[in-house]
Amino acid sequence: MELLEARIRRDGKVRGDDVLKVDSFLNHQMDVRLFAEMGKEFKRIYGGCGVTKILTIEASGIGIACVTAQFFDVPVIFAKKSQTKNIAGEVYTSKVESFTHGKVYDIIVSKEFLRREDRVLLIDDFLANGSALMGLIKLVEDAGATVVGAGIAIEKAFQPGGDLIRSRGIRVESLARIKSMSEERGVEFC
Amino acid sequence: MELLEARIRRDGKVRGDDVLKVDSFLNHQMDVRLFAEMGKEFKRIYGGCGVTKILTIEASGIGIACVTAQFFDVPVIFAKKSQTKNIAGEVYTSKVESFTHGKVYDIIVSKEFLRREDRVLLIDDFLANGSALMGLIKLVEDAGATVVGAGIAIEKAFQPGGDLIRSRGIRVESLARIKSMSEERGVEFC
Repeated sequence: MELLEARIRRDGKVRGDDVLKVDSFLNHQMDVRLFAEMGKEFKRIYGGCGVTKILTIEASGIGIACVTAQFFDVPVIFAKKSQTKNIAGEVYTSKVESFTHGKVYDIIVSKEFLRREDRVLLIDDFLANGSALMGLIKLVEDAGATVVGAGIAIEKAFQPGGDLIRSRGIRVESLARIKSMSEERGVEFC
Repeated sequence: MELLEARIRRDGKVRGDDVLKVDSFLNHQMDVRLFAEMGKEFKRIYGGCGVTKILTIEASGIGIACVTAQFFDVPVIFAKKSQTKNIAGEVYTSKVESFTHGKVYDIIVSKEFLRREDRVLLIDDFLANGSALMGLIKLVEDAGATVVGAGIAIEKAFQPGGDLIRSRGIRVESLARIKSMSEERGVEFC
């Protein structure tokens, strides 16, 4: 998606060989006008797939998911990172490894919101090692529901997550796919 | 706001005398069509106030904030609950006590996204003891920026947060204000 790639070129900041800071428009400060263009693109890609729910993971996926959901006219569910006493009853759960934070945590979603008949679009801001996305896929599969595919804002295509998940037969569409990056040369897209 | 009150009456679940579960439409599964109506209402209330940024706190405020921001055509910033290595540079910080989770945590926002000239609308899903909102207000004040006011989905008016913050001269507008609630009688609005 040209608009997103141009924005990454302009405002993204590369740190080392694998950290891309996009916190001025994607995951700390959020440009909702850009999100609307991204949502339209996800709708163009997945609009014919009978999506009934969008599933994301807190926190930085929520904004993109909610704006995207307006184009699909479906609810969003966000997987929570730990169990709180405000979630009663049974939950689906899986484990996600955060390379950013260097730890493993549980994500949960209430069983009442994921039904066998649901056709679920997964939305997230980043795809790198694929741990978060694999965790979301497990939640949907545990519910007996269908993963329609994943809509990712930025895929670090030089890391293994995208290939891993596509090799399982799951459709992954990323609006910007980064082939390589460095502080000297900036970002190169696929 | 009648639409939100009706939805709380229909789908909200009271637990004990002070827990209101609205996770089927507000803060776990999210009804973005309802959020759009809430966003329009916040725009009606604060549309003439020169808002330049919307500030919320992760995680459950982000969806409402992003949908609302589309009506104001301004960026959203969400305060993060702990420092990650992906936020470099200086941050504003304050402490928030979570009664739901029974702990105190730091919230942070990068200094580069809150400027002295900003006029900030605070958005959150709940107002009860006011700790989260006070934390957000401190971030804005530390930046030398202006708090235009707060837009809250559900205020537990029987808890002290709303009065506390209004007594500081800060405008707080809540779309649903709960006077009292119990498992037997359900929710009574102000």
